[in-house]
Amino acid sequence: MKAPDQPDVTPALEELYRGFEQELLVPLWTEIGDLMPTHPRSRAVPHLWKWENLIKLADQAGHIVPVGRGGERRAIALANPALGGRPFATPTLWAAIQYLMPGENAPEHRHSQHAFRFVVEGEGVWTVVGGDPVPMQRGDFLPQAGWNWHAHHNSTSKPMAWIDGLDIPFQYATEAQFFEYGRDEISDAERITPERSRSERLWGHTGLRPVSVKSTAPGSPLLNYKWAFTDAALADQLALEAEGYAGTVEQGHAAVRYTDPATGRDVLPTIRTEVHRIASGVETTPVKETGSSVYQVFDGSGVITVGDKSWTVSRGDLFVVPSWVPFSAKSEAGSGSDSGALDLFRFSDSPVLEALHLHRIETVK
Amino acid sequence: MKAPDQPDVTPALEELYRGFEQELLVPLWTEIGDLMPTHPRSRAVPHLWKWENLIKLADQAGHIVPVGRGGERRAIALANPALGGRPFATPTLWAAIQYLMPGENAPEHRHSQHAFRFVVEGEGVWTVVGGDPVPMQRGDFLPQAGWNWHAHHNSTSKPMAWIDGLDIPFQYATEAQFFEYGRDEISDAERITPERSRSERLWGHTGLRPVSVKSTAPGSPLLNYKWAFTDAALADQLALEAEGYAGTVEQGHAAVRYTDPATGRDVLPTIRTEVHRIASGVETTPVKETGSSVYQVFDGSGVITVGDKSWTVSRGDLFVVPSWVPFSAKSEAGSGSDSGALDLFRFSDSPVLEALHLHRIETVK
Amino acid sequence: MKAPDQPDVTPALEELYRGFEQELLVPLWTEIGDLMPTHPRSRAVPHLWKWENLIKLADQAGHIVPVGRGGERRAIALANPALGGRPFATPTLWAAIQYLMPGENAPEHRHSQHAFRFVVEGEGVWTVVGGDPVPMQRGDFLPQAGWNWHAHHNSTSKPMAWIDGLDIPFQYATEAQFFEYGRDEISDAERITPERSRSERLWGHTGLRPVSVKSTAPGSPLLNYKWAFTDAALADQLALEAEGYAGTVEQGHAAVRYTDPATGRDVLPTIRTEVHRIASGVETTPVKETGSSVYQVFDGSGVITVGDKSWTVSRGDLFVVPSWVPFSAKSEAGSGSDSGALDLFRFSDSPVLEALHLHRIETVK
Amino acid sequence: MKAPDQPDVTPALEELYRGFEQELLVPLWTEIGDLMPTHPRSRAVPHLWKWENLIKLADQAGHIVPVGRGGERRAIALANPALGGRPFATPTLWAAIQYLMPGENAPEHRHSQHAFRFVVEGEGVWTVVGGDPVPMQRGDFLPQAGWNWHAHHNSTSKPMAWIDGLDIPFQYATEAQFFEYGRDEISDAERITPERSRSERLWGHTGLRPVSVKSTAPGSPLLNYKWAFTDAALADQLALEAEGYAGTVEQGHAAVRYTDPATGRDVLPTIRTEVHRIASGVETTPVKETGSSVYQVFDGSGVITVGDKSWTVSRGDLFVVPSWVPFSAKSEAGSGSDSGALDLFRFSDSPVLEALHLHRIETVK
Repeated sequence: MKAPDQPDVTPALEELYRGFEQELLVPLWTEIGDLMPTHPRSRAVPHLWKWENLIKLADQAGHIVPVGRGGERRAIALANPALGGRPFATPTLWAAIQYLMPGENAPEHRHSQHAFRFVVEGEGVWTVVGGDPVPMQRGDFLPQAGWNWHAHHNSTSKPMAWIDGLDIPFQYATEAQFFEYGRDEISDAERITPERSRSERLWGHTGLRPVSVKSTAPGSPLLNYKWAFTDAALADQLALEAEGYAGTVEQGHAAVRYTDPATGRDVLPTIRTEVHRIASGVETTPVKETGSSVYQVFDGSGVITVGDKSWTVSRGDLFVVPSWVPFSAKSEAGSGSDSGALDLFRFSDSPVLEALHLHRIETVK
Repeated sequence: MKAPDQPDVTPALEELYRGFEQELLVPLWTEIGDLMPTHPRSRAVPHLWKWENLIKLADQAGHIVPVGRGGERRAIALANPALGGRPFATPTLWAAIQYLMPGENAPEHRHSQHAFRFVVEGEGVWTVVGGDPVPMQRGDFLPQAGWNWHAHHNSTSKPMAWIDGLDIPFQYATEAQFFEYGRDEISDAERITPERSRSERLWGHTGLRPVSVKSTAPGSPLLNYKWAFTDAALADQLALEAEGYAGTVEQGHAAVRYTDPATGRDVLPTIRTEVHRIASGVETTPVKETGSSVYQVFDGSGVITVGDKSWTVSRGDLFVVPSWVPFSAKSEAGSGSDSGALDLFRFSDSPVLEALHLHRIETVK
Repeated sequence: MKAPDQPDVTPALEELYRGFEQELLVPLWTEIGDLMPTHPRSRAVPHLWKWENLIKLADQAGHIVPVGRGGERRAIALANPALGGRPFATPTLWAAIQYLMPGENAPEHRHSQHAFRFVVEGEGVWTVVGGDPVPMQRGDFLPQAGWNWHAHHNSTSKPMAWIDGLDIPFQYATEAQFFEYGRDEISDAERITPERSRSERLWGHTGLRPVSVKSTAPGSPLLNYKWAFTDAALADQLALEAEGYAGTVEQGHAAVRYTDPATGRDVLPTIRTEVHRIASGVETTPVKETGSSVYQVFDGSGVITVGDKSWTVSRGDLFVVPSWVPFSAKSEAGSGSDSGALDLFRFSDSPVLEALHLHRIETVK
Repeated sequence: MKAPDQPDVTPALEELYRGFEQELLVPLWTEIGDLMPTHPRSRAVPHLWKWENLIKLADQAGHIVPVGRGGERRAIALANPALGGRPFATPTLWAAIQYLMPGENAPEHRHSQHAFRFVVEGEGVWTVVGGDPVPMQRGDFLPQAGWNWHAHHNSTSKPMAWIDGLDIPFQYATEAQFFEYGRDEISDAERITPERSRSERLWGHTGLRPVSVKSTAPGSPLLNYKWAFTDAALADQLALEAEGYAGTVEQGHAAVRYTDPATGRDVLPTIRTEVHRIASGVETTPVKETGSSVYQVFDGSGVITVGDKSWTVSRGDLFVVPSWVPFSAKSEAGSGSDSGALDLFRFSDSPVLEALHLHRIETVK
């Protein structure tokens, strides 16, 4: 919406505006264009962060910045260039690379912010959630609903990186955040390194709910969604498509959403998480959607178009799609990944918008 | 509640009662004891059906009763001895053994009744649901929500039996049943015998929802819950228990409930389905619950107590637990099953009672 | 569905059937026509009960049958002629006339069955629910969710009648009933006769929820829906229609549903209750619907058609509409009621069918 | 949470930080204290706006600033002194005084932002929502869910003021806003001035849902909650309390929440609205709550305490309570209002926090 015509500037108007200022008042008619646009015009801009730069800086930080109580985590956040230098990837989402050196521990804490971890490469860290050590390997997705105690420990002789996604900016806007320190050191019993967390043993069986659990808190009780299952689900969709059956989002474009096995809903109350597989040579239909997303390239390479920006991307690269800006992805033919496809991990604030009936999505013609 | 004291029989009362009869009226005070008991007193009774007898009669029927349009299925139903000869296992649940000879087909139809199949032994039949051939093997559970087209075909040279569970008596009571004939013969393309149905390829990945499916009808979109996964889930619960963690219902008693991956709720709107594993030598705490259940022994052997009845059971045996009658199961030590445990498949009308706030459960002291 | 062709009667078949009988088994193929009809074919039939006969018999009972502990209530139930003499108006619904003589009390009790009272004429009884005396006057509707203590007392010098609606047959079918005696006599403090119950003072303000009440049990917390409000709502709908706006169900046919102010849902988990006003001279479109209904004429007169039955009805008359039987009502022009219209109170089992996804409704062409 | 200890500033650290800056990255360890506080520390501050000043400035604006397309409304918003001069009463809520001169019209538009109007004094404006003219008088509350067409017209010879509440700042943060112009002039038929809107005639009958309406959009279909009903509900609560029954929030403190009659939920998906009546001489228990509120004094006078601020307030005054800042109100004895009590209208963002499981409330000891 263009800025509206303003009343003629007269001494009376100037006096009125001084009165407003004095009484801490602001008229709608000077602000409406910014506040009530005809469609979302995000303060954020599309932007790409190259993984090679992130990992290099994270490693540098690994050597000179200690991890410990107070700073809590060696996490380095994406700061959208249009959001005033704040560590906000989008107006509602936080995305950071976290880095843990061999033998390091990140102390236990909990917070109201909802979080997840996604592993694009490496392994060897266990996230201990409520005393349950959860392994982390390439492709694993670990949701972690707010207010659960958690710590990390690296049990190997190699550093490990992963990305953290949180709703920090959203909760910063709504001002309902709580944070509490836990133990500085977890127990020896929690330092074990099982291949499967207890949560996976209890909840990781398709469609089989443990009868002993009467109800669950908001957020998924399953703490690790292993890559092998995600990969198989995506491959199955493309195979169904090849046989002539429904399953993919559109031709050559498979996608799964991580869901809470106890409810079938998003794994976190405020964050949606998905993996999209775009078959070799395929370009997705541009869509625009209310709310913002952050993507990380999990595998393959291709060309991403977000509004008037376009980038060639490969493994580990991160980029943001602001609200109502058209997005499409094109997989590069023969990119040499395992599946020969472009695999994109995505997270967004869609559950917030859906819960409040503010979600809209449109195909861009 | 005992029958209430009745008014003295006088000529006036007799005339009043004649008036009632003439006008099709019945007073509460003569009926209240039966209609409004202090707690549920089921019209049904506990009863056991031995699998060896069922399978023998089913095979006999296989040789002399054809399967075809009109009769629709070679299904033989349990008739609770206290329900007037009606083919009702309990006042709300239908349970039948179905039997298909080599090469036979059961023609396509659909009905509002919710159904499932559970396979205690054998293999070789595919149930074709909406054109999707679903394999059936020992331990497989196939939910099938009402109003889906379905047919069965036996592709092997051996007969196959399984049990059908439906809410026929419940829908008979509520009178909302619809039934429609489909094609007499399914197509050749539907006679294929894949190891996994398309539904499993789309929905059988823990916590991974296909993004392409915007919404699902009532009832689970996953049409086969394979035994290997059920077995693993039960084994995991007992292993967690052995390590000192929560997971089982009570000591030595693991249990999973089949749930709809799209909602986390029961797989069928009117029927709850579970598998219970009772470790060797363990006896479960007696419980009584509103609503009725039918059980089938999947593996192992043991002693079942339902109210004042007690039976020794083994593979395939079926029994019913009427509303509010105490139930417990004791696994026979060293019964020689794979898991060394008593595995019980159970179905009940609990979702009906829960949806209407009529569900109660109590431990019997 | 017509009865299916049966296998030829041979000695082998006879032996098979003897085997079934011995093992308490019943084949599907002899029963399917009755159990799985192509559409609901109710065991109940349409029937009309004339109020003048009911009230006369109730009064007769008032003079010779005492009210007290054991019999509990002087309630006389409609017995559908096709339901074997049981006091069931339909397979799921109970409808009775209750009658209380001057100064009489009906003792306190509670039960899991959901209930309501509707007053077609008279006044002077207070129903005391959980200690809250609720007045009863012509046109008042008093829902009473299961497991609430309640008693009645007639504080006047005249007898009073009203109808009770309950889900007794439904709970009889599902076998989840509980019943408990309360005090034989309520306290003097509860014998007061206020014009408004406390429930009305707390919940009877449109769209205004008391902040002090954090949550409510199943069923409406509002214990009286007074006629003046119902009448006004119906009049408003017809006035809107007259001005050319939406509001009525169809031309000349206004209708309101009693709803729980805390949830907007039906006032009882198992019973839907509505009042329909059919303007003078109007005939409603025939509809058939799964589930059954009981109607009482509140005011006016007209002609009711249920399937192939047709009756002229007037104030107080009760009739039943079985599942899937077409129903329509025609208001008699100039019938002389206050509104000049035919007012029908209706209750049905629709919430049960809707909760379980078994509800269907169709206009009959 | 205090700012964490920072790593020693070395050339290596300075180089690292330069690298972060260059790559648009920000470390968590320098920001965590602000981003993840131990409890909400609002950017907003408590503040009071006096009605006499607001109304004077609004009237001044009425004489020199025209109302018309582009500026859309003569609305003057509260700007929290700690929110950088933006017209945000709190980080999520917008509150403005709107003013319409005799005979003026505010043109039709619609927007995704949810809105309401509350009238503290005056009358004579009708808000036309989707063609339905809704009257506005002292004490009336008009919810208006997003994306409904609406216009205002003043049909009298006197100016009229009221307050508008919207979720503009919240939707500004989540960036899902849409806005569309409607007609510049509404029709003559819409310029009528009925005492009751059509929405009130259809939905304004307690617990009586129009059967003709199958489903409603998010937000209440009832467009006016008249003061007489609100006043009666509050009076009833205090009368119940006086008789010894439950009903009030705490001694001498009655409160009602405006709810959607179709669902029993808040009238708007993002905004909760309530009226609190504090009896003469009573002081409420201090509470702190996540999320923010705006209050307007509807009647009476008293002393408000918000954190370390304290003000004497009277009719029309507005003040804000930021997230997690303790709030209490004391009614001034004998303040001379109709009810002799302090009546406070309140709106808050609680539905947002509740939908996302971020709501917490605590009594301050």
